[in-house]
Amino acid sequence: MIKNLKYNIYQQHCPARLFFEKIADKWVLLILNKLEQETQHFNLLKKSIQGISPKVLSQKLKMLERDGFIERKVQNTSPIRVDYSLTLLGLEVAKMAYQLKDWAEQNIEEIILAQQRFDEIQAEQTE
Amino acid sequence: MIKNLKYNIYQQHCPARLFFEKIADKWVLLILNKLEQETQHFNLLKKSIQGISPKVLSQKLKMLERDGFIERKVQNTSPIRVDYSLTLLGLEVAKMAYQLKDWAEQNIEEIILAQQRFDEIQAEQTE
Repeated sequence: MIKNLKYNIYQQHCPARLFFEKIADKWVLLILNKLEQETQHFNLLKKSIQGISPKVLSQKLKMLERDGFIERKVQNTSPIRVDYSLTLLGLEVAKMAYQLKDWAEQNIEEIILAQQRFDEIQAEQTE
Repeated sequence: MIKNLKYNIYQQHCPARLFFEKIADKWVLLILNKLEQETQHFNLLKKSIQGISPKVLSQKLKMLERDGFIERKVQNTSPIRVDYSLTLLGLEVAKMAYQLKDWAEQNIEEIILAQQRFDEIQAEQTE
């Protein structure tokens, strides 16, 4: 692939940076990763991502739809149900979100140990 | 690798979730990615990551050191210089940060097109 050198996320006003800031977000990564598992409707998503507020979920879904990452399908049920699924573009980011999720779950114990070591050294230095 | 099922980032108070929230952060990902390129000292990092304030950079570096992602080495120069480099643990996250950075720079044009299509459809619907 030819490198696209026009964009650089280290430049504050580069469009790629603005976009990077949007996806380097816990809720966005959690939503995309959840949708990679299966198509979900709003309430199911809200329930499965503990701690997200309906307002934030709604904002993030709208943003992800606008960016072309997810598709919104209104189902003709009663009451009407809106399903969300990933586009091919969304799937690519979801795979990266999954790696980060998996890594966090696999390595959290090692990180807690590192934190304990750091805190012990700090405590020794202030004694 | 055996899956560690004790941790689940979708659970709000899971230690892995708290950690995931810390790394799913634009500054953290930008710092780790920058350090993957080379060891850097504070001012160089500050200069290369446009938009970061000294206070935020300092907080994030301390957090990353405590988590065992970066090493801090005081150089016996005059004035004293503090160098930051990645640990092996930090390198693993830096590689994921690089993927996200690269993807954002490569795909930003497609995303801008998706946004334009979305806005056109919205405008038609409100006409």
